[in-house]
Amino acid sequence: MKENKMMIDQPVSWRDYPAWLTDFQGSVLESLATPLEIAAFEAEQFTGSGRGKGPSFSFELDKSLGESYLLEKPAPDRIVVRGGERGILYGTYEALFDLSCERPLPCGLQSPACSLRMLDSWDNTDGTVERGYAGRSLWFEGGGFSYDPDRIRQLGRMLASVGINVLCINNVNVDASARSLIGDLLPQAAEFANLLRPFGIRLMLSVDFSSPMFLKDPDPASGGNDALLQSADPLDEAVRRWWRHCAAHVYWAIPDLAGFLVKADSEHRPGPNTYGRSHAEGANMLAAALAPYGGKLVWRAFIYNCMQDWRDTDTDRPCAAYDVYQPLDGSFADNVILQIKNGPYDFQVREPVSPLLLGLEKTDTAVELQLTQEYTGHQIDLFSMPPLWREIFDRIGKKRIRAAAAVSNLGRDDNWTGHPFAALNLFAFGRYAWDPDQNPEDVIRQWIRLSGYREDEEKLTDLLLRCSRTYEKYTAPLGLCWMVNPGGHYGPSPWGYEFQAWGTYNRADRDAVGIDRTAAGTGFLKQYPPEVAKRYEDPEACPDEYLLFFHRLPYSFVMRDGRTLIQRIYDDHFEGFEEVLGMQKLLSGLHLPERDRQLVKERMELQVRNAREWRDVTNTFFHRLSGIPDRNGRMIYD
Amino acid sequence: MKENKMMIDQPVSWRDYPAWLTDFQGSVLESLATPLEIAAFEAEQFTGSGRGKGPSFSFELDKSLGESYLLEKPAPDRIVVRGGERGILYGTYEALFDLSCERPLPCGLQSPACSLRMLDSWDNTDGTVERGYAGRSLWFEGGGFSYDPDRIRQLGRMLASVGINVLCINNVNVDASARSLIGDLLPQAAEFANLLRPFGIRLMLSVDFSSPMFLKDPDPASGGNDALLQSADPLDEAVRRWWRHCAAHVYWAIPDLAGFLVKADSEHRPGPNTYGRSHAEGANMLAAALAPYGGKLVWRAFIYNCMQDWRDTDTDRPCAAYDVYQPLDGSFADNVILQIKNGPYDFQVREPVSPLLLGLEKTDTAVELQLTQEYTGHQIDLFSMPPLWREIFDRIGKKRIRAAAAVSNLGRDDNWTGHPFAALNLFAFGRYAWDPDQNPEDVIRQWIRLSGYREDEEKLTDLLLRCSRTYEKYTAPLGLCWMVNPGGHYGPSPWGYEFQAWGTYNRADRDAVGIDRTAAGTGFLKQYPPEVAKRYEDPEACPDEYLLFFHRLPYSFVMRDGRTLIQRIYDDHFEGFEEVLGMQKLLSGLHLPERDRQLVKERMELQVRNAREWRDVTNTFFHRLSGIPDRNGRMIYD
Repeated sequence: MKENKMMIDQPVSWRDYPAWLTDFQGSVLESLATPLEIAAFEAEQFTGSGRGKGPSFSFELDKSLGESYLLEKPAPDRIVVRGGERGILYGTYEALFDLSCERPLPCGLQSPACSLRMLDSWDNTDGTVERGYAGRSLWFEGGGFSYDPDRIRQLGRMLASVGINVLCINNVNVDASARSLIGDLLPQAAEFANLLRPFGIRLMLSVDFSSPMFLKDPDPASGGNDALLQSADPLDEAVRRWWRHCAAHVYWAIPDLAGFLVKADSEHRPGPNTYGRSHAEGANMLAAALAPYGGKLVWRAFIYNCMQDWRDTDTDRPCAAYDVYQPLDGSFADNVILQIKNGPYDFQVREPVSPLLLGLEKTDTAVELQLTQEYTGHQIDLFSMPPLWREIFDRIGKKRIRAAAAVSNLGRDDNWTGHPFAALNLFAFGRYAWDPDQNPEDVIRQWIRLSGYREDEEKLTDLLLRCSRTYEKYTAPLGLCWMVNPGGHYGPSPWGYEFQAWGTYNRADRDAVGIDRTAAGTGFLKQYPPEVAKRYEDPEACPDEYLLFFHRLPYSFVMRDGRTLIQRIYDDHFEGFEEVLGMQKLLSGLHLPERDRQLVKERMELQVRNAREWRDVTNTFFHRLSGIPDRNGRMIYD
Repeated sequence: MKENKMMIDQPVSWRDYPAWLTDFQGSVLESLATPLEIAAFEAEQFTGSGRGKGPSFSFELDKSLGESYLLEKPAPDRIVVRGGERGILYGTYEALFDLSCERPLPCGLQSPACSLRMLDSWDNTDGTVERGYAGRSLWFEGGGFSYDPDRIRQLGRMLASVGINVLCINNVNVDASARSLIGDLLPQAAEFANLLRPFGIRLMLSVDFSSPMFLKDPDPASGGNDALLQSADPLDEAVRRWWRHCAAHVYWAIPDLAGFLVKADSEHRPGPNTYGRSHAEGANMLAAALAPYGGKLVWRAFIYNCMQDWRDTDTDRPCAAYDVYQPLDGSFADNVILQIKNGPYDFQVREPVSPLLLGLEKTDTAVELQLTQEYTGHQIDLFSMPPLWREIFDRIGKKRIRAAAAVSNLGRDDNWTGHPFAALNLFAFGRYAWDPDQNPEDVIRQWIRLSGYREDEEKLTDLLLRCSRTYEKYTAPLGLCWMVNPGGHYGPSPWGYEFQAWGTYNRADRDAVGIDRTAAGTGFLKQYPPEVAKRYEDPEACPDEYLLFFHRLPYSFVMRDGRTLIQRIYDDHFEGFEEVLGMQKLLSGLHLPERDRQLVKERMELQVRNAREWRDVTNTFFHRLSGIPDRNGRMIYD
């Protein structure tokens, strides 16, 4: 399990290596028990003992400030961090980042926009990671916990340095073994929580809504309640009591547990609908059990008919979440948070913002992002998320965001994220969850400077600002999504999902493509506030990148720039591939560290192959359907 | 492991239950050591001790007759079976079948058309069965042998009753563990061979061409040869010696082993091409090792580029086997048998006969059929193979067939074949391998009478004569194949394989569909003898069922019956589905035994769903491409 023994003897310096994505040996952190001790240690590492490379730090604890902090520089060689205990930790990391990046310290009180900044792992207790592209689970194996404590401390440091304060340790698709995280595995979970507590990170657990039917009443004093329940009905008093006992039991073991995360009535998961109860009734029942301990109940608003008949053109999957949850606005308990994916579909390369994120007034919501590159290139193809998020946060509007969650892209790979550049997305998530007003270029430059790539800052900034747009061009032109290989979701298959039950269709034929989602079509657009709907409803005015998300159009449709729709599809694919070749060339000229060079090169070769496949399959697909040749006579295979 | 304990107390009678697919307790066979003893026992079972339902049998052993036999009925209550030892066994089963079916005994000397009548299992040592739809392996589990000896004896009896004389016990895709069937697992294999020997069944083993690189020299006296070889080059003397030692070792353990079966240079399997050697050189090297023991080397002629670029329209997968093997005709050793799939592709619902089966003059060949319903409905949908085989054997011409192999459809399910009616295909394979001149209706009626369905003989005969044509209508109209879901091969996906590397394309576009395989196209048709090629080359004259196998045609092409091609595609799909509904109705009126009723009903419900899906997906696919409506205004979904 000691995977990074080799690093123990290496000198460590914040200048030489990124603070937050780190080879730093976790073992030296073992003796540190609180955020303040961590903060002191980090500052000392940076400035102290024979290095003398930076100013000295002093801390002023003001518990009333909680996670907030103030940074002051009363003298060039002195920094004062004032804040609550965790505030001081975050302030220290911010100061160290700024010193490393040669940026000015932020002025005034710094407070997080989101109080819940959560990393959702999709780790299974058998050690696999659903949609994971960076190796096996960092903490699960063989049906339970199995980890290198030093590496978990490294993880804690990495997450804390960007302000992530909650880690949900298990997959929302709770398997039979993971069910016992609130049972037999709880002592191990508590031990794991102890490892992360000094970093200000609390655990969250994904729970199975039907747990009372599979686990005995957790209260040892519940005598006579030894039998499993026959129901998980949230209005059944026996069920409610079971969950109260469960919460008492779990909080006895992990007093600072952040709460429970639940995926219910979604993709064959159990939920309140089984008993004719609403999602508010389901969530509130669990929330009531957690409330005495200050726990949050995070309820995933990911729901749709995953058994749709493709022949049914009335049902439109993007409508589903709003239809279910908007009418429930105001009926959720205070400690319920509705966790809503950024788009109405499912983490596609291009989606408009979910109308549900705009449509709730009386419900606490979390926006859910996906760092793991399920639909965005499997951490093989380059995909940088900050430009995308800038748009998303702008569309949501800052005031509505109180919580942010992201599906983790971490695994047991040496570099944590499979592709070393994929780490940018984790870094950026923490930064955006703290402050959604960030400028993407700014965040990218910070990450580059902190990650040992400063020598190539200009080139890499350019690459990371553009690569996701490039990926979009060759995989999802004009907002057309889901043209991926079913199951794996890497590589093109224009009709791979077309006749399946997942509600993901492009309905291309010889004349036209797309689904009309205006009021005249499925009506999805009506879920948006009028001023937003107006932006998209007229195909002549709709932004190009959303054109085929909202409209069904003939291939001959003439776009604002004078090109036809089909020509634009061809052009995007040819351009996308050319841009990948350009990226490959750019990468070959970078001064990457030895440990990254081969890996980056090999993955780029795979990306070139993937982009070529996307270009040709998609162009051929539309050419076979439309019969319209490329205006520029480029090769389209028959 | 005693899966059929429950049957021990049941009375057994050949009239009440099929002779060859049987609940008969295997344990009573334990004491029988030779084919003659088995024959005597079977005859006794039928006629003797308190049953008195049939004539008495007497046997006249004439070893010179080998597997052949003569049946005589000197008196109404007496049957004489003359033959070699195994001939007497087969003659006895034939007589018992005929008595049970109330058919006259065959006149004259009965000799098998094929001397090798082999069942190829695709069982893996981990207990899975590749493309198996009847449960796990009957003899493997957990990396080695694991079986109920009584059930294996039942298996032996079942196979012997239809004349199958070789069982290849492991998958041609030899996994790491199965490699040791010629090593550590050999003693267990020998024990398994002992179980089947009384039934006249010899084992064959699938071997990995690169075995010398993974297993130590099997000759304990090879001192100094303890290291693995670095090559499997068939012309390397060390490799040749390794295989000679291997053969000696294996034949010491299993003296009557039928030989080795090899899949080489195919779908990522190792083979002689790695070393720049021909398949004749590869096969002959192994054949030389086996020759001293009378062993056969069965070499699968299944080869094609499974990494084809779909953009490459010059390469045409059906051409591959002929291109490789025809030029080698005459260069194979005497004990090599080339095992050739019935069609040039891969067990599709409709394929012309492989030109290689018609193109070899100096090579012993085996035709390979597939009983397991990989592409023909997974033993859920009804698919009866005798009508298909009648055509295949007619096309091959009787004189060329010296060996027949079939991929097994057996598994650990109580009824052996998943769907009880799928057993017909195993029964029929044995009958055809013995005598390819059989009439399909005749074979089907025999099986019905022997399998407890006599009460429904007329209806069931009708069903089993028609069901495969029905399946073809809704899955592969006009010879268009490969429109299946990739991977699993159940259910429709018109372009699921279109942009993949497997060489399986329909190249449909808005105007036309199919691949031109005439001399003007890929030239595949030129591989056939001229009189055969002539039958197919003109689309105006080509039989409908092969039209889109050999030709690329516009949807508007007018067929001989006046219908357009597209209309015929629509019609076939609508008719296919209606016929399935008719089959469902017919089945619901049968007097099936209790043990079959629910299972047959449930699978038929799945077939109805599958047929509906095929109908609608395929019709929609072609409608979206062609834009041509159904002439009869039936529903095609957009």
